[in-house]
Amino acid sequence: MRFLDDIRPTARNAPPSGIVEVHLEGLKRPGTAKLWVGEGSLPTPAHIRDAAVRSLLAGETFYTHQAGLPELREALCRYHDRLYGPFGGRPADAARFIITGSGMHAIQMAASLVTGAGDEVIVPTPAWPNAPAAAALCGASMCEVPMRFGPSGWDLDPDDLKAAITPRTRAIFVNSPGNPTGWVASRDRLAAILDIARQHGIWIVADEVYGRFCYLDGVMVAPSFHEVAEPEDRLIFVNTFSKNWAMTGWRIGWIEVPAALNATVQNLVQYTTSGTAVFMQRAAVEALDNGEDFLAFQIARARDNRAAVIAALAATDGVTMSPPDGAFYLFFSVEGESDTRRLCLDMVREAGVGIAPGTAFGRGGERFMRLCFAGDPQDITAALDRLPAWLATRRGLGGGR
Amino acid sequence: MRFLDDIRPTARNAPPSGIVEVHLEGLKRPGTAKLWVGEGSLPTPAHIRDAAVRSLLAGETFYTHQAGLPELREALCRYHDRLYGPFGGRPADAARFIITGSGMHAIQMAASLVTGAGDEVIVPTPAWPNAPAAAALCGASMCEVPMRFGPSGWDLDPDDLKAAITPRTRAIFVNSPGNPTGWVASRDRLAAILDIARQHGIWIVADEVYGRFCYLDGVMVAPSFHEVAEPEDRLIFVNTFSKNWAMTGWRIGWIEVPAALNATVQNLVQYTTSGTAVFMQRAAVEALDNGEDFLAFQIARARDNRAAVIAALAATDGVTMSPPDGAFYLFFSVEGESDTRRLCLDMVREAGVGIAPGTAFGRGGERFMRLCFAGDPQDITAALDRLPAWLATRRGLGGGR
Repeated sequence: MRFLDDIRPTARNAPPSGIVEVHLEGLKRPGTAKLWVGEGSLPTPAHIRDAAVRSLLAGETFYTHQAGLPELREALCRYHDRLYGPFGGRPADAARFIITGSGMHAIQMAASLVTGAGDEVIVPTPAWPNAPAAAALCGASMCEVPMRFGPSGWDLDPDDLKAAITPRTRAIFVNSPGNPTGWVASRDRLAAILDIARQHGIWIVADEVYGRFCYLDGVMVAPSFHEVAEPEDRLIFVNTFSKNWAMTGWRIGWIEVPAALNATVQNLVQYTTSGTAVFMQRAAVEALDNGEDFLAFQIARARDNRAAVIAALAATDGVTMSPPDGAFYLFFSVEGESDTRRLCLDMVREAGVGIAPGTAFGRGGERFMRLCFAGDPQDITAALDRLPAWLATRRGLGGGR
Repeated sequence: MRFLDDIRPTARNAPPSGIVEVHLEGLKRPGTAKLWVGEGSLPTPAHIRDAAVRSLLAGETFYTHQAGLPELREALCRYHDRLYGPFGGRPADAARFIITGSGMHAIQMAASLVTGAGDEVIVPTPAWPNAPAAAALCGASMCEVPMRFGPSGWDLDPDDLKAAITPRTRAIFVNSPGNPTGWVASRDRLAAILDIARQHGIWIVADEVYGRFCYLDGVMVAPSFHEVAEPEDRLIFVNTFSKNWAMTGWRIGWIEVPAALNATVQNLVQYTTSGTAVFMQRAAVEALDNGEDFLAFQIARARDNRAAVIAALAATDGVTMSPPDGAFYLFFSVEGESDTRRLCLDMVREAGVGIAPGTAFGRGGERFMRLCFAGDPQDITAALDRLPAWLATRRGLGGGR
């Protein structure tokens, strides 16, 4: 096809996100329950928005530090010390943090740092598709390692990980709490993964974006590589302000790298986005320093929504799932329904409930679907009122058509 | 070195911008004339900031369209029709526009679309270093084609361009009006470049960011590829809101591609930044629709500053320059001074005037320096009061030390 034949295969082959198709169907239908996307229903808290507004009104509209505002990098240190200090995390170091134009931008730079043509990257699946797609844009090949689904939920078997490593493996992408599965790696599991990476001299790219959304008893934050790593480990963290503080639309995040790579990452910032708006960064400081109350509210709401969703689906014939330990997605399958792309399209059109098909998340999750429970409890309840009946009718009609 | 040996050579070798060194020296010295960077001294106009503020206060903080708001893409169409319609440009088509998280992000995506390992990209130099750096991050090799500097200024000889093309050439990067040279390609010159690209089946990436800053008599906008191209040409435009509307710190721009590549570029957006904040886009609509008065003021100010800078340097012994036809930089050399990196560092330390060394801009410009005249007339006058005397003293001391 004209033009498409003229561009690089890596760009041409970047797949459309498998979530977008349902999204487009849902947009056509007012009243659809939008449970396909990883965001809540609340706008960013007013005090955080106000910090950006004050900055804008003060005329902070000029170029700024490539690495991000020193104040924001210091605020990140305080935040990390609060979170991980009590669990043995080392004191945070501002030289390790660089502000990014989204969590996705952090992932893109992580991929540029550690992967390229001829390299292999291990991705435990089911996984959010964007990280593997970023590595593929760098020319790397994906090695999917399906997690195991059992009575106690999803888990990554370290032996499966080991078996997947080849001389070309350069990195393992670890997302815990996991999107879409809700998997939360235990501290021991993280240590085992780190050991494997150390033995083979490969990088870990740790996406701990959902670290605050953890439903295990008595746990305030999910186990983190921060608790088990040493400064000399080949470890890159990618993170975002989006989920904790309802800032999905803002596009601001951060990357944490060994301090020796700080200057290199600043160069990558220069040649990808050339930095992040000061007024965004002011809001981010406010979120880190004064956003805990809102975050506690968001977590409590997700916890309640999670219970409601689990109860409704547990009472629905033919549904298989495991209660997620973290993040804010329920990942479930329906007996007799193997084509989840079709099922999700039918669901959004007929039941007005939009969720994401498992086919969007790689090997092992194709028969599942992802329902986001971060939103408004009323919207979720309304969806749960419609969904079981619709599924039952469909089963009565022969399902899986 | 630990870690640096462990990352990809393309990332490790991304060079620090040659402008940053002077920037860091200048930051240490309050009162330095900051003429090294491509931005003015005025904040974004209040009515544009207010559009973002209104959006923030209204809670527009959610994920939005990958391609950008339809309203903004329509505003871009109106803007292009106003600018290029009178000169034979085809009616603009919203399907060709995608909003980006900066002009740099647009360049990054253009580079991903058309270049990769084993490819060559032609860059007429002296050139702003970020575009070649973005292509290098994709694995491409640069082929620098030095422009010719003569009594009538800088120009790109189409024969030089032709001679540089090899079977591996995939794209030509054309920046007119040019940073740092102030070169403005005539319509005939653009047509000749386009012809060469057509004959060899290669892409043009057109950076027309400074199109509105043109000092040729009776010219309201610099000649553009929009005036000579056909829909079937392999042509990508990259642009930004930064320069016209004093929005350098915002990070919002756009890319224009053949409509057949729209979906591919949306995928690239998804896997690089995942979109641009709605409140930024509201401000961008306001800039396009109601920003002409401010832009006219900016252009008039740059025109006056240009005259002042030219007069001061023309009266300075040993200065070689050509009045720039466009953009807002004066690119000049000083007799006996061949090490402009050293000269610029001495200048910022001793004269308190910060400008960018030509070594930052590739072949042919090493002996020149770039002075930005977009800023406050008083700051520029103050710098011009110090600079000639400092240069004279240095010459008296033997210069070029």
